[in-house]
Amino acid sequence: MKTVILGSGNVAFHLAQAFHEKNIPIAQVFGRNAKELKEISEKFKIPFSTSTLADADFYLIAVKDDAVAEISTKIIKNDCLVAHTSGSLPKEILSGNYRKASFYPLQTFSKAKVLNYSEIPFFIEAENEADYGELHKLASLISGKVMQSTFEKRKYIHLTAVFACNFVNHLFARAKEISDSQEIPFSYFLPLIRETTDKIETLDPKLAQTGPAVRNDNRVLKLHQMLLTESEHLKIYEVMNESIKKMYEL
Amino acid sequence: MKTVILGSGNVAFHLAQAFHEKNIPIAQVFGRNAKELKEISEKFKIPFSTSTLADADFYLIAVKDDAVAEISTKIIKNDCLVAHTSGSLPKEILSGNYRKASFYPLQTFSKAKVLNYSEIPFFIEAENEADYGELHKLASLISGKVMQSTFEKRKYIHLTAVFACNFVNHLFARAKEISDSQEIPFSYFLPLIRETTDKIETLDPKLAQTGPAVRNDNRVLKLHQMLLTESEHLKIYEVMNESIKKMYEL
Repeated sequence: MKTVILGSGNVAFHLAQAFHEKNIPIAQVFGRNAKELKEISEKFKIPFSTSTLADADFYLIAVKDDAVAEISTKIIKNDCLVAHTSGSLPKEILSGNYRKASFYPLQTFSKAKVLNYSEIPFFIEAENEADYGELHKLASLISGKVMQSTFEKRKYIHLTAVFACNFVNHLFARAKEISDSQEIPFSYFLPLIRETTDKIETLDPKLAQTGPAVRNDNRVLKLHQMLLTESEHLKIYEVMNESIKKMYEL
Repeated sequence: MKTVILGSGNVAFHLAQAFHEKNIPIAQVFGRNAKELKEISEKFKIPFSTSTLADADFYLIAVKDDAVAEISTKIIKNDCLVAHTSGSLPKEILSGNYRKASFYPLQTFSKAKVLNYSEIPFFIEAENEADYGELHKLASLISGKVMQSTFEKRKYIHLTAVFACNFVNHLFARAKEISDSQEIPFSYFLPLIRETTDKIETLDPKLAQTGPAVRNDNRVLKLHQMLLTESEHLKIYEVMNESIKKMYEL
């Protein structure tokens, strides 16, 4: 299957790298950002273009959600398969007469960060069995965890990921503001953070909950509220504690 | 320094284990819960009592915050050092004529979970240099990260930990409710969660933020709000996204 990647951001970069590591040839990376395309091109020995889309059997669109529809119109060929990598778009967002699919890797991608692709779950959806089979085969070359998923399910997978990844990272960022304000190095908290996520590999997070709210320790909750001077910190503090208390019926 | 541990919960259990691993003798574990004391006693070969507190040079109180003051009155000896392990109590909560101290391990403790004690930061506070020196020496036998900390600072360390650990775990628990509701195995999210925390070992969390809110992707935010049927999920979703948008001035 002659494959072209459209896009040059974090997801496109890592998919190109994942294919490169498994010696899966990519015919072209196509997009608007010449600088980023050039980087991918040089690093993984893939031709790139900002103007002429190469002919291929499979076009993999790895761009931001709001750019998917537009870039999909660049594919004027009909006899081909086109997939996007978004967790929150239906495959029908792709606007062309080609066969449509979704190829969603559940991971948070930063260019600088080395990833173990074999552990990343891939969720695949296609119009027919043959296309699904091809995409499953392709994803299975990269990862041991390839599954079918409808758009209905994919939306919830993405939503869960927002809670378990995006919001978690934001808590780290807010926590660091608090420790920074007292000149406490954030590195002190890394073993605690590692243990927090380590625990839930074997323990249901509901059973792993610790801290003042689940102990219903209102003295500490009040003490903390007095220490918090920024309104965003205070709002998070109150909503999270309220939610913890409700979960454990305190 | 002849040492007694008061308490039999998660913190007491792990401190007893940490001392045991380094062959540091503990004269007694003392408390109310005979069953838990017996478990610690058998596992780490430490005598226990629920009635008669052994004579010692150092009493380490590892009980819940609201039980610290009361159990500290059981120590009627004057010529001894007494420390508690709480992040949010001053050492003056200890009520006796002995010398007072704080011995705070920054970690989340569950009995079942094996821990690497050498990485746990210990924050120490004492009335005088000699006591501080003794406690620093003791903690240094367990961990490579032993630091001085006033109560003022300790409060903020604990508060930061609530954001970076307790609230993070609660997000995992709420995330699991969402994936459970759609029969999506929570194990799918573990590589993503590992990567989320792995990232901040080398990257400032503020720079590592991903997701719809930081992209100001209001289409996805609205889609997710429609999917969320539980009010606690929705409240968390709104407060976190609002806070992300404020942090990045979106």
